[in-house]
This record gives sequence, structure tokens and C-alpha cells, in this order.
Amino acid sequence: MSTPQASSPSHNQLDSKSEAWSALFSEPMSDLVKRYTSSVFFDKRLWQADIQGSLAHAQMLSAQNIIGAQDLASIEQGMAQITSEIEAGSFEWKLDLEDVHLNIEARLTQLVGDAGKRLHTGRSRNDQVATDVRLWLRGEIDLIEGLLGELQLSLVEVAEKNVEVILPGFTHLQVAQPVSFAHHLLAYVEMFKRDAERMLDVRKRVNVLPLGSAALAGTTYPLDRERVAQTLGMEGVSQNSLDGVSDRDFAIEFTAAASLCMVHISRLSEELIIWMSQNFGFVRIADRFTTGSSIMPQKKNPDVPELARGKTGRVVGHLMGLITLMKGQPLAYNKDNQEDKEPLFDTVDTLKDTLRIFAEMIGGQVNPATGAKEGGITVNADNMRAAALKGYATATDLADYLVKKGLPFRDAHETVAHAVKLATQKGVDLTELPLAELQAFNPNIDADVFEALSLEGSLNARNTLGGTAPVQVRAQLAKHRVRLA
Amino acid sequence: MSTPQASSPSHNQLDSKSEAWSALFSEPMSDLVKRYTSSVFFDKRLWQADIQGSLAHAQMLSAQNIIGAQDLASIEQGMAQITSEIEAGSFEWKLDLEDVHLNIEARLTQLVGDAGKRLHTGRSRNDQVATDVRLWLRGEIDLIEGLLGELQLSLVEVAEKNVEVILPGFTHLQVAQPVSFAHHLLAYVEMFKRDAERMLDVRKRVNVLPLGSAALAGTTYPLDRERVAQTLGMEGVSQNSLDGVSDRDFAIEFTAAASLCMVHISRLSEELIIWMSQNFGFVRIADRFTTGSSIMPQKKNPDVPELARGKTGRVVGHLMGLITLMKGQPLAYNKDNQEDKEPLFDTVDTLKDTLRIFAEMIGGQVNPATGAKEGGITVNADNMRAAALKGYATATDLADYLVKKGLPFRDAHETVAHAVKLATQKGVDLTELPLAELQAFNPNIDADVFEALSLEGSLNARNTLGGTAPVQVRAQLAKHRVRLA
Amino acid sequence: MSTPQASSPSHNQLDSKSEAWSALFSEPMSDLVKRYTSSVFFDKRLWQADIQGSLAHAQMLSAQNIIGAQDLASIEQGMAQITSEIEAGSFEWKLDLEDVHLNIEARLTQLVGDAGKRLHTGRSRNDQVATDVRLWLRGEIDLIEGLLGELQLSLVEVAEKNVEVILPGFTHLQVAQPVSFAHHLLAYVEMFKRDAERMLDVRKRVNVLPLGSAALAGTTYPLDRERVAQTLGMEGVSQNSLDGVSDRDFAIEFTAAASLCMVHISRLSEELIIWMSQNFGFVRIADRFTTGSSIMPQKKNPDVPELARGKTGRVVGHLMGLITLMKGQPLAYNKDNQEDKEPLFDTVDTLKDTLRIFAEMIGGQVNPATGAKEGGITVNADNMRAAALKGYATATDLADYLVKKGLPFRDAHETVAHAVKLATQKGVDLTELPLAELQAFNPNIDADVFEALSLEGSLNARNTLGGTAPVQVRAQLAKHRVRLA
Amino acid sequence: MSTPQASSPSHNQLDSKSEAWSALFSEPMSDLVKRYTSSVFFDKRLWQADIQGSLAHAQMLSAQNIIGAQDLASIEQGMAQITSEIEAGSFEWKLDLEDVHLNIEARLTQLVGDAGKRLHTGRSRNDQVATDVRLWLRGEIDLIEGLLGELQLSLVEVAEKNVEVILPGFTHLQVAQPVSFAHHLLAYVEMFKRDAERMLDVRKRVNVLPLGSAALAGTTYPLDRERVAQTLGMEGVSQNSLDGVSDRDFAIEFTAAASLCMVHISRLSEELIIWMSQNFGFVRIADRFTTGSSIMPQKKNPDVPELARGKTGRVVGHLMGLITLMKGQPLAYNKDNQEDKEPLFDTVDTLKDTLRIFAEMIGGQVNPATGAKEGGITVNADNMRAAALKGYATATDLADYLVKKGLPFRDAHETVAHAVKLATQKGVDLTELPLAELQAFNPNIDADVFEALSLEGSLNARNTLGGTAPVQVRAQLAKHRVRLA
Repeated sequence: MSTPQASSPSHNQLDSKSEAWSALFSEPMSDLVKRYTSSVFFDKRLWQADIQGSLAHAQMLSAQNIIGAQDLASIEQGMAQITSEIEAGSFEWKLDLEDVHLNIEARLTQLVGDAGKRLHTGRSRNDQVATDVRLWLRGEIDLIEGLLGELQLSLVEVAEKNVEVILPGFTHLQVAQPVSFAHHLLAYVEMFKRDAERMLDVRKRVNVLPLGSAALAGTTYPLDRERVAQTLGMEGVSQNSLDGVSDRDFAIEFTAAASLCMVHISRLSEELIIWMSQNFGFVRIADRFTTGSSIMPQKKNPDVPELARGKTGRVVGHLMGLITLMKGQPLAYNKDNQEDKEPLFDTVDTLKDTLRIFAEMIGGQVNPATGAKEGGITVNADNMRAAALKGYATATDLADYLVKKGLPFRDAHETVAHAVKLATQKGVDLTELPLAELQAFNPNIDADVFEALSLEGSLNARNTLGGTAPVQVRAQLAKHRVRLA
Repeated sequence: MSTPQASSPSHNQLDSKSEAWSALFSEPMSDLVKRYTSSVFFDKRLWQADIQGSLAHAQMLSAQNIIGAQDLASIEQGMAQITSEIEAGSFEWKLDLEDVHLNIEARLTQLVGDAGKRLHTGRSRNDQVATDVRLWLRGEIDLIEGLLGELQLSLVEVAEKNVEVILPGFTHLQVAQPVSFAHHLLAYVEMFKRDAERMLDVRKRVNVLPLGSAALAGTTYPLDRERVAQTLGMEGVSQNSLDGVSDRDFAIEFTAAASLCMVHISRLSEELIIWMSQNFGFVRIADRFTTGSSIMPQKKNPDVPELARGKTGRVVGHLMGLITLMKGQPLAYNKDNQEDKEPLFDTVDTLKDTLRIFAEMIGGQVNPATGAKEGGITVNADNMRAAALKGYATATDLADYLVKKGLPFRDAHETVAHAVKLATQKGVDLTELPLAELQAFNPNIDADVFEALSLEGSLNARNTLGGTAPVQVRAQLAKHRVRLA
Repeated sequence: MSTPQASSPSHNQLDSKSEAWSALFSEPMSDLVKRYTSSVFFDKRLWQADIQGSLAHAQMLSAQNIIGAQDLASIEQGMAQITSEIEAGSFEWKLDLEDVHLNIEARLTQLVGDAGKRLHTGRSRNDQVATDVRLWLRGEIDLIEGLLGELQLSLVEVAEKNVEVILPGFTHLQVAQPVSFAHHLLAYVEMFKRDAERMLDVRKRVNVLPLGSAALAGTTYPLDRERVAQTLGMEGVSQNSLDGVSDRDFAIEFTAAASLCMVHISRLSEELIIWMSQNFGFVRIADRFTTGSSIMPQKKNPDVPELARGKTGRVVGHLMGLITLMKGQPLAYNKDNQEDKEPLFDTVDTLKDTLRIFAEMIGGQVNPATGAKEGGITVNADNMRAAALKGYATATDLADYLVKKGLPFRDAHETVAHAVKLATQKGVDLTELPLAELQAFNPNIDADVFEALSLEGSLNARNTLGGTAPVQVRAQLAKHRVRLA
Repeated sequence: MSTPQASSPSHNQLDSKSEAWSALFSEPMSDLVKRYTSSVFFDKRLWQADIQGSLAHAQMLSAQNIIGAQDLASIEQGMAQITSEIEAGSFEWKLDLEDVHLNIEARLTQLVGDAGKRLHTGRSRNDQVATDVRLWLRGEIDLIEGLLGELQLSLVEVAEKNVEVILPGFTHLQVAQPVSFAHHLLAYVEMFKRDAERMLDVRKRVNVLPLGSAALAGTTYPLDRERVAQTLGMEGVSQNSLDGVSDRDFAIEFTAAASLCMVHISRLSEELIIWMSQNFGFVRIADRFTTGSSIMPQKKNPDVPELARGKTGRVVGHLMGLITLMKGQPLAYNKDNQEDKEPLFDTVDTLKDTLRIFAEMIGGQVNPATGAKEGGITVNADNMRAAALKGYATATDLADYLVKKGLPFRDAHETVAHAVKLATQKGVDLTELPLAELQAFNPNIDADVFEALSLEGSLNARNTLGGTAPVQVRAQLAKHRVRLA
């Protein structure tokens, strides 16, 4: 390029990138290095966000008279062509062009010449990639919000059918007190509701525009950043260019929220696995969520809950990876940051697949013939009831009964411990002790004690806000229905 | 206790807890087990929250006629006594009584008899501990908000004095473009501002009342949970008792937010350490934040930034520990959860100490004699400027200059690469190339190019929102001042 | 110090350290900074290693004529005095003196004057602390080896009594095949055996001497490092001084090995918790490892296994913290490294306590009156057997039976799936299907099939190395006994 | 299959697996579930290990007369055919067949009929997959050993050329003492040497045969497991079948070792990045390991070291994911374990790519024309020397000089602090203070002090084992050459 001129027949520098990055470089990258440093084979999934961001940028450049209207028209036409090519699968992604951004820009310049070379005016890949990831992640969060809603709805639907079904509530996996199965399921609705709230909090901080930060210091062109933000539906623009290009808080924050959601999934999975074990037999999941064994012909294994429990590790690993990535990095952009994408992408994929499959596994899917949902979990109320009758689940009710007769709670607690000890020695339930024997522990015990000691009596008595009494559970169900509508 | 009676002279079951948990237990805990399972030596720091929660509970019990007014009065008087004892250091914490809750309840019953035994009516340690931790953490978050504000203010104050000081902005630790030192500091203000926002989002979900969930299923007493929440200044009550006692999302979410804040601290620390290295010499921190060497007499080491960078690992480790803790736990409360406290406590302590010490190390401390702050970082503007003159920091400005002359950006970029190559070969800066040599690269280059290539010219030209031009930086400073006032 | 002289009456520089680190420093540390940077309140536990290392160093200095024999005698006498003081609790640990090393050196100089000041010749705190931690950790690893042996022995002892006890082996927590309870316990012996091997591999790399690396570059004194290593029982000396002071691999490697051990503990805990749940009822642990509930009088909760499962998170968190700590640190020593100690100390404490308590919880403790162990886990063989009879645990045996009659395995597998389907529909076990019905699936089935389908038949048939047949289990037990003797 | 017969014309059950797992299953998997649970698209990389393991198993089955010689011949011939198909890319991998094992077995049965159905006799996918992963990982460890050797050799080669090149050794990134650049590089050789040792320790525990554990309990066929181990070159067989199928220690242990290696890479990368920064200018890496900027024409960024530093997070994340995966799993095999593969595969790939690229980036690659290596790092000795002359790097040497004149070390240390203070005030180096001024600090200082204070004097004086004196460095180089030969 001995006599460079603005008017010289334009050549496309990106065409010769495989030979050297620019005139400054004395040798091309080796293939090993290309493979190590290129991101195009995973970041090409950002192509829609990349084009969307470029168009918003170009429209602003034109409105600010930084590029001409004709340039904008060419860029828009070129991007339409590229969109068609990518959707048709005919776009040729090149490793030599490193990433989605240079691949699209190079093709644009092939298609529309100098207008394509003007697109990058006033921006850098540093702010471009941050913008792309934020746009993409915002869309994914919206999908995740929908899936969290569907999963909650599945849980609510199953709960509605199981308000009166009693299973033993456990603490320490020891029988504690009888609870409504619906109440148990609603505990998970609360968790996934919090997950959805957290995702919305994350979304606020994702939906901010870094474009215009350029490489790190802002740009010399009179950009209208607010306009670009508006075009892209973003809630604000980043206020410091160094921060704009180097901030990956949003990726970590999202992955932390996803990790918590997966922890909830892992708890639900653990319960499903225990409940399906033959000694419990509380529920079954449909065959299509299970697999058999290559050796044991009788097996139906709860593969999906187990895998989901395992995939918790995967997402938590990504969170730890991203934090390690950012620890100790000086400002501003460093190449380390490129490593943010694969863990983020895999977190999104894992979370979405898991939520979708759990919504269907719990609640079933619509039978088009009947319009009704089929194939969700099957509840074995008899096994649940039988289990609730073990372990003196209503011992607390006896203590409460005594308190209502005037005993201080601590004394009542101790009295009942003696009664349980006796019942255990006799191998019977508290309700199977004769009234006289109960009265030996406390003379104020009357025949009405047996109602208090029944599963239903115990359940109905826990009639405080958030308690397991069916009337409370139905009130919660009604609130969730309204919220999820 | 063969003939228990409501009217029998009350004995304090907790007094004999070292012999056996209750009548059900055939042997006491061994000392090893006590040490392994007891939490009192770390959870006693919750004592204020525990008493505050108990008083709110007792007041409600009385208002609901579940306990008598006299019982309430006794409880209040006993708790006042216990408060005095703890504050005076005369309260005897007993390992045998496992945790802060039983220690306080046992002492209360010693002091006020049956009224003390009635306090636990309608609650369990499961909902009690969740309430205590939430109350305590809410207070700590408020302190952290204050400290985040102080640190931001320190950064703003130093920035205000350094708007015109130019250092090389780096990407990849390679000289990139000149930036204002104030602008650089404001990048950290943005980070800590986001941290403060995140903490407020966490606070919403911390400030919810689980009390009334009892063991796991709610309670048989007609509690008024909304009243307790109001007394304690909480924003709502948990809506599901199983979730209420087993949820530790808030601890994980807080620790994740704290981890992000420590990642920001680690980045600032890394920069301080590099800036203090002799080859940079950009800043010094005051001697009181450094230490010497036991062997090398010339050393002043930046201990505080290094330790803070190291403590990032500590907090991230706690996050990983808490997530591992909760993974795969079935509902409802399990003893595993007791392990939430030490990491949470240490995270709070580490974060608060770090924020406090950084606020002072950056901004100095008030000299009571003058009312002015002294002893913050010392800035060496000459070294910064000298460094900014290396590495062709204004090469982008030459490209932008050519774009304004009509060259497409990509062509301008390539033209400048050739110019930098020549300058490098000659061992001079771009501004040291004669105009004629520059014009050989592009005939449209005029003498005004040297203004564009100066550090100040480059800085002033980046006059877009979030850019490094002093006028932009001053506008940001003004906004931060208003916000932090 | 305007006229410093070798012969001037010696003053102890460390006495005035609270005023300034050295003459170079213009101000003392603030209290906040002291608290933040000092390590003495946790690293004082290294005191024995510190003295041991100092004595070995001093002996070598004397042997090399770097210090005089009288100096060595004074140092030895001073250290004996300090040892007494620390053991008696009368040693005054000072925050101002930062760490265990300066505290001891300062006291030594108080006691023996110039000889104390000569001790630090040819070393630095950087190589001193690395030596101390390695010496200390080597001792702890030896204790852990012993505890891993004890836990294995407990498992072996319980296994020996339960070779013929059959429980259902699970995969996916679904009944799979009958296994000997002894065989199940021996799976954990294998895990803890690997842990012990890993610890020995770690020990090799711990037991290497960094002393003599000095600050980072070695020293100008003619040290005999091999002699010091020999005195301290170390297997070698570090070969590069920069690496010697900055290497923390051994701490990470140890914590990784400890994390794996805790993962094994978490698996065993999970099983104990499930086995103790009323619907399983396979085992009980002694009351002294359980606690009750403050509200539910009937509860005995498996606190120790639950806490141990939870403490897995703690140790894993420490591993994550240590890795984060070291990531991206430039050479050589940085203050970040001081943060290695608390996670390492807590990992050692947690692991040792957990192993000790598990050894006793599983195997019981010696009754001095009888010399026999008492109070380990109680096995309920009836419940195990009943559970093994559910879930078609011997279906694979039917398939294997058919293979021995000539069917290819895949065909046999499919045939048995049909038989299980029929039995499920009838609600009976395979052994309860009449021979004629079995023969309808395959005419080669004879009456001897019922032996193959019995629990004992199934168990005895798995008579390959590592299989669950009692003869194999007994062979393994014998091998473990020899190894652990 | 109402009348199943051994002699019926064989059908291939796996052909109809897309319809239902076995006769027990009432519905096929949905596509979503298939995608969620199948592993074939990542575990197919195990194909060689799978075939190798199957052949060893079949040979043993035949030797034990469990299958006939003709069956073995058919299996061998079928596997040869499958090998060809996979290598040619014509093998059709089917999602419906879940994993690599069923894909290969199904094809085998298509090719050779009943013999293929007999292959699975006496094994399960549980022990099969554990065997495959171990075989594969053993091979990868051997490759990693080779790459660790190459990287060490590169470092040694560069070190050999730079024994006399002096750079400032840093502690706390503050100038500490002069060190040989070769000595600095050899610190990394020590780290990678330890990594190689750790990998060999891991290899011992990887190279153990689980095959024969069958599903979880062993098998009813008279297998000769030792023979299979010998065929496969394994060092032993697993001794407990439950442990054999559920153990993933080896994957965690490998990933922990890989994490440590990546931590070392992150430290070296951090140093390269700092050294390449314009204010240091100590080294350059070749252009092919750097990239430019899309906006700043002057940039050459050290992409490879930055990415490698970032990829540390990736590997550490995998370690955390794997530990989370295994935490709390009951015995024996659970589907969670399938999630071990992707993190393990990615860890191996990342580590191998990184080691290979660092070996070449440091040491260059062989020019076939000359046989000499070219294109490794370029060392700028002048910049290193200039930096070593800042920061009073030889102050310790002055203290040692005084000790040799009789001063106790602590007094000498304090004396030098005063001298450094004076030199700092004058803005000169210690060597630039006139002898008289030095003597004012201590009258025993003579003219020979200037030799001690020179960089070379300081370097040569550190002549102890592991020290930086060139004679020591050359001795280490010789030892490494022998070891790595």
C-alpha cells in the first residue's frame, strides 16, 4: 500500500487477514493459535444480536451525518442479504476471521464495498461484543422467565389435585409432621418464583448499552448513544467507557441466579428420586423420562431427575469459572474475557432444557385430542399416608394439646417425649395408646385428643398463613393462579 | 417425671440437657460430638437478633391471647436482664446448650420460670434461626451499603483532583489510548455502584419473615405473622412453611453479591500493585498500608491491596461452600444448614473490613485539626504522562482524522498501521514523523494532525457520553456527587 | 541511629515495630490495617514448627561457622524458654509483631540479645513461613493417615459381623441386585484407602525444604541446606529459590485430597440418612450422635451425618478459595499467600474431627470394662431383607439363568422384561410366579430357577473378584485386616 | 414375544429401542428427553477405548468358555468392520441408541448376529463406561506427560541462553533482588515438573480395571478379571464392585492436577503480559501469538497468554462442577455420573492445547531448513538490566556485607534502611553514595562494598543450592537436561 488514497479502488483488508492482522504483523497466526484464539465456532450464535446492534449503530451514524444515507441503505441491504444467507445455512463462517463480528463485517464489505468499511466508525469489537452478549442474554432471560412460569404452573396444577393428600413432612429425612402434598409442591413454587424475581433483577443490569465506549475511552465521533439504546429497547447506557468494555458482572450475576435455580432443581430431583425408590413409592414419573438397564431387565431409572441433579454441578462450575476468569484482571478489556461465552451459553442451554423438561415431567403435556394435560407425575396417596402414620408425626400436636390445657410448652414437650418412649417400647402409634395410659402422663388429656392426633386433625390445625392446613393451601393456590395468569 | 402436672413446681428441662436431649434419649452426647455439632461459639453473635425476634414473637403471642400479659412482662424483663449480662460479658455461654437460641431460652427460664417456657409456643428453632440470620444480615447489608458509599466517595474525591491527569489507558496491558486518571477511577465507582444496587436487591429477599413456619408445617396457634413482620420492620412474611425453614437462597445470593464486589476489589488491587511497581511508579499508597521485609531493608510492600486480592478467594470459596451445602438437600430443614453461618459471617466481616480499609487507603482520613482528608493515594502525574507517550497511544486518533477526511474506517486503520510500522522502525512517536512522511501515507494529512495526535487533543476529542474527555468526566463527577450526597 | 556501630549496646528493632516498620517508614500502621494484615492470631498454631525450623537453621549456621557456638547455645536456651512460656500460656502474643515468626524472634532477642538477632541470618520470612507450614502439615497428614486407618478399621469390624446380611443394592436409588451389607461397607473402605494413598502422595511433595531460598534469590551465606533437611526429616530441598518461596501447590493439593475424602464422607452420610429414615429403617446410629427437636418431641435426628455432609461444602469452598488465591500471581512471594493459612487450618481441623467422629459412630468405642467396642451403628437385617424382596432384585439372575441355557444375553434380557411385566401386573415377585407361567416365557426354565431367584442364590452366584458373594467378601476382609494391622 | 425361544430367528432388540427401552416401558422417550439424556454426541470420542475394552472382554469370555471361539471370531471381525466404518466417517451414530456403547453394540449385532448379543455377557454399561473412560484418560495422561516435558524443554532451552541476563526479582511486584532470567524460568520448570509427577500419581489410580463389577454387585459368570486387566495393560483390578461402578475419584483427581497446572500457566501468563507491557518491555512473543485491534491500528496484544490465563477459570470450573456432581450421591451408579464426561473431555483438550502452544510460544519451533528452533520469545536484556537498577535491589547485599563485618543481622537490616532512606532522598542508587557517606552509617564499610552492591556481585554471591548464582543455575540446567533427555 505504497500510495494509499481515499479514492483508490477499495480492497477489503479482512480478505487478507489470514496473511497478517495488519501491516504491523510480520507473520500470520499458526493454525494451532487460530484454533486456540478464535471464537467464531461458538460465538456465531450471536449473529442476530450482532446484526441488530450493527443496524442500530448504522442508523444512528446516519442520523448524526457521520455516514451518508446511501451508506446506511447499503448496509441495511447487505445485512438483509447476510441474514438470508445465515438462515439458509449458506453463509461461510471462516476461522481466519476469528469471530462472528469480523465474519459478518467482512461479508458486508464484500457485498456493499466502502459502506461496509464505514460501519465500524466510532465503535470497537470491545464494545460491540459486550453489546451483542447483552442483547442476546436479555432475550434468553425472557425465555427463561416464560419457562419458570410454566414450571410453576405445572406444580400448581398438580398441587390443585393433591390438596388433601397427606404425606409425612420430613426434617432431617425423619418423619416430622403431616403435610399436604400440595403444600410440599408449593414450597418449590416459592423457590422458582424467587428465581424469576432474581432473573428480573439481573435483566435490569443486562439491559444497558455499552456501545459507544469504543475500545476503552469513548470515541471522537458525535455519537447519539441514547438513540441507539432506544432503538434496541435498552434501559440506559453505560456511563463509563472503561467499565463499559470490561464489565462482565452481568454474566456472573446471571450464572449465579442460574446456579440457585439449579440448586432448587437439585432439591426437587433428590426428592423425586427418593420418592420413587421402592421403599417410598410416593410418586412415579412417566416412562418417557426414565431408562432401563443394559443388564438388569426390571429397571426403570429416574434418569431425568438424576441428570438434572448432576447438571447442577455443570452450572455451578461455570459460575466458578467465570469468577476465576475475572479475578485480578486490570482494566480495561483483556482477551481473557473471550472465555465468558462458552460457560454463559452452556448455562443458558442447560437451564432452559432443564426447566422445559421439568415442567412437562411434573405436569404432563397437552393431549391435542382432549385438550387436557397427560403424562405428568403419578401420585400414590396410599403409600404417602402409610408413611405418614410412621414415626409419631403428630407428637407435636399432643404437645400443643397440652399447652392448650395450660402446660408451658417446654413441659408439654417433655411429657410427650415420655409418651413417645412408651409407645415405641410397645411398638404402637400414639393413637393406639389407651386413653388411660395417655392420662397417666397428664390427667387433663380427654377423648378429644384422638382427633388432634389424627393426620387430618393435625393438618387442619396448622391453619396459619403459610401453614399446611388445606384452607391455607387453597388460598395460596388461588394467589399463584392469579399471579401466573 | 412419672406424674407430670401443669401445676407441678416447674423444672427447667434445658438444665438437664447435658444428660440427655429429652426422655427419648438413652445417653448424652459425647464431648467430641458436642464440639462437632454445637454452634454457640459462632452463632452467639446473633444474640441481639435472637432477643429482638423473641420479643416480637412474645408481644404477638400476648396480643393473640396465646400467652398472658404477665408472661409477656416477665419475658421482657428477663430479656432485658439477659441483654445486660451479655453486654457486660457476664453471660455464661454453654456448649451443652448447643446454640444461641437454647442458651438464651434456658437463661430466660432460669430468670422468669414458666413464662420462659411459654416463649417457644408456636415456633421452632428452624424458623427462629432463619429469622435471626435474616434480621442480622439485613443490618449488615445496611452497613455495607454505607461502606460502599464511602468507598465511592473516596474515589470521587481523588478523581475530582485528577481530571486533567493523563495516563495510558490499557487494553491487554498494552498502551491503548490516553485516558483521564479521574475517568479511570470512575470506572470503579460504576462497579461499586452496581454492587450497592445488587445488595439492595438482595435485601428485599432477606427482609422477609419466616417465623410462624414453626418446624416445617406451620403451627396450631392463631399467630398473627403480619404483626410480627411489622414489629421487626420486615417487608413481608414467607408464604410456605416448608420453604420458610429450608430456604437459604438469601445467604447464597448475598455471598454471590459479595463475591462480585471482591472481584472488583481484586481488579483495583491488581492495578494498584502494578501502578506501584518501580517500572510504573504511577501512584503510592501511604506507608501505613504497607509493610517492610524481614530481610530486604529497602522494601515497602503494598500489603493491603495484595491481601485484599487474596481475600477474594476467601469469599468466593464461601460462595462455593454454600452452594455445595444446599445442593441436593431434600425438604425441609436439615442439619447441614447449620453450616451456613460461618461462611456468611466471615463473608460479612471480610467485605466490611476490606471496604473500610480501601475507602481510607484511596481517599485518606480526616485530619481533625484541619478537617481535610489526608493520607490517601499519591499520584505521580509525570510518570503517567511519560507512560502515555509510549506505545502510539494516539494512533486511533490518526485513523479518525483520516475518516474525517473521507477515508472509510477500515482503510484508515490500515493506513495508520503502515505509519506506526515506519515510526517503530525509526524509533520515534507518530508526532515525531515529519509532515511530509505522514503525507506519503495519505496526501490529505495537514499540519493540524499534530493537534489530533497530542495527548490532550486525543483526550478532549473523546467527548461522548461515558467518554474520557474532561468535560464528560466532570459531568459524571457532578452526577455521582448528587447521588452520593 | 546517626552513629551505628557493631559494638553499640544492642537495641531490639522489633520492640519499636509498632512505631514504624523500619527507618524507611514515615508512619505506623493504623489499627484497622494491623488487624487486616496481621496473622498472629491464626498462625500462632505454627509455633512448634517455627521453633523446630529455627533450631535446625541455627544448628546449621553454627556448623557452617556463620554464627558462633555460643550464639547457638543462647538460641537453644532461649527457644527452650519460649517453648515453656507458650505451653504454660504465659507467652504474650502481640498484634504489632504481625505473625508467629516475629513474635518468637522478638521474644528470643529479648531473652538472649544479639544471638537472637543473628538467627535470621541467611533466611527470610518468605522461606521461613513456607518451611513452617510444610513441617506442620506433614505432621497433620500423619495424624490423618492414622484416622483414615481407624475409620477403615471400624468399617471392617462392622462388615465382619454382617457378611451374610443382605440389603438391596441400588443403582439410581432403584432396587438393583441383592448385596451383602459387608460388601456395601467395603466399598467405603476402598474409598478411604484411596484417600490414604493420595495423602501419602501429597506428603512427598509437602516434605521438601524451602529454607535457604531466603527472600527469593537464595542467600550469600554458605548454608548447608541438605543438613537442615536431614535434621528436619525432610526428603529433599527445593531446587529453585523463586519457586521455593512462592509455591503453594502443596496446600492446594492437600485440600483437593481432603475434598475428595469429604465427598466420600458425604456419600456415606447420605446413605446413613436415607437408611435411618423410617421408610428404610436399615440402621440406627447411637443416640449420642443425634439430637432432638425443640418443638417435635418424637424426633431423633442424624445430626452428625448431616453436618458432615454439610461440611463437605466447607472444605470444597476452601479448595476453591486457595485456587482463586494463586490464580494469576506473578513471582515470587506476594502477600496474597498469607491467605493460605486459615483455609488450610480449617480443612485439617474439619477433616480430622470428621474422620474421628465417623470412626466412632460406625464402629463404636471401647468399653474399658469389657475391652469390646460398643455403641456403633445398629443394623436391622429384617428391614434390609424385606426391602431386598421388593423391586425384582433377582431379575438379572433370571437372565443369566437363561444365558446358561443357551440364550444370547440380549434375548434373555428382553425375555425377563416380559416376565417382570407380568409379575408387576399380578403384584407378585418373580419367585411367586408358578413354574408354568415362567416356562411360557422360555421352555428351558426348570424348577432350579427358584434357587437362582432367591436372595441367597443371587448373592452366592456373584462369585468373582470384587463381587458380593460372601466368599469374596470374606477374602477382601482378610486382605484389609492384614493391610490395616 | 409371547413364545420366546432360544432358537427363534434372532431379532436385534436395540433396533427397536426408539420405540421403548424394553417390554417394560409403555412409551418411548420424547425427543426433548432423548436430547437431554443421550451422551452419544460427546462420548463417541471414547469409541477406540470402547472397542479395545470389548475385545479384551470377549477374548476372556472365550478363554473362560463363556462364549464360543466362533462367537469371539465374529466379534473380532465385526469390531474390525466397525473400526473401519468409524475411521472412514461412514458409521451412523444414532441419538436413539443413547451412547457410544449401545451404538457400537447395536451395529455389531447387525453385523454378526447372536455373537454380538453375547458380548454383553457378564458386564453392564456401568462397568463398561468406567473402563472406557479410564482407558481413554490413561492415554491422554501419557500425551500430557509428553507435552509437559516439551514445555519444560522449551523453558530450559531459553534459560540456557539467558543465564547471565539479569532482571529484577520481585516480591509484591516491588524490586527485591537481582536474579538471573534463567533462574526465573527454571522456577516454572519446577512447577511443571511437579505437575508431571502429580499426573503420574493420578495415572496409577486411573489405570485400574472396573470391568467385571457388572451393574454393581459382580456377576454370575466365571470371569477372569486379571486377564482382562493384563490384556489392557492395567495395573490392577478394582476390589469392590459397588465402588468399581460408582467411583469417579480419578476424574476429580485428574481435574485437580490439571487445575494446578493451569494455575502455573496463569502465573507465567501474568508475567508475560506484564513483561510485554511497554513500561517493562522485558520480552516479546512472536507476532503469530498476538492479534491486533479492530480499532487501534498500533496494537499487538498478547492474546495467547491472556486466553490461557482465562482458561484457568474454565478448568477450575470443571473441577468444581465434578465435585458438586459427586457430593452426596448414594451408592452405587447414578445417572448423575454421566455428567462427568464433558468437563473431563474439555479439561483434557484445554490442557493439551495450552501446553502445546506454550511450548512453542516460549521455545519456538524447528525450522526444517536449519534444524534450529525459531520464533520463541525475544528477550530484551537491556530493559531488564535497567529495571534491576531501580529500587535498591542490592540493599540486602549491603546488610549481608555488614553481617560479615560482625553486625547482627537485625542491626545490619536497620542500618541499611537508613542508608536507603538517604539515597532515596538524594534520588540516587546505593552505589552512587560516596564511600564516606556510607561509612557514616557504619565505619567498617570499605571500598569493596561497591562490588557487593553491583548486580553481578549480588548475583554471584547467592551461591547456595537453589540460589540464583550462575554457577548454581548452570548446575540445575544440567540436571534438567539429563532428566528430560
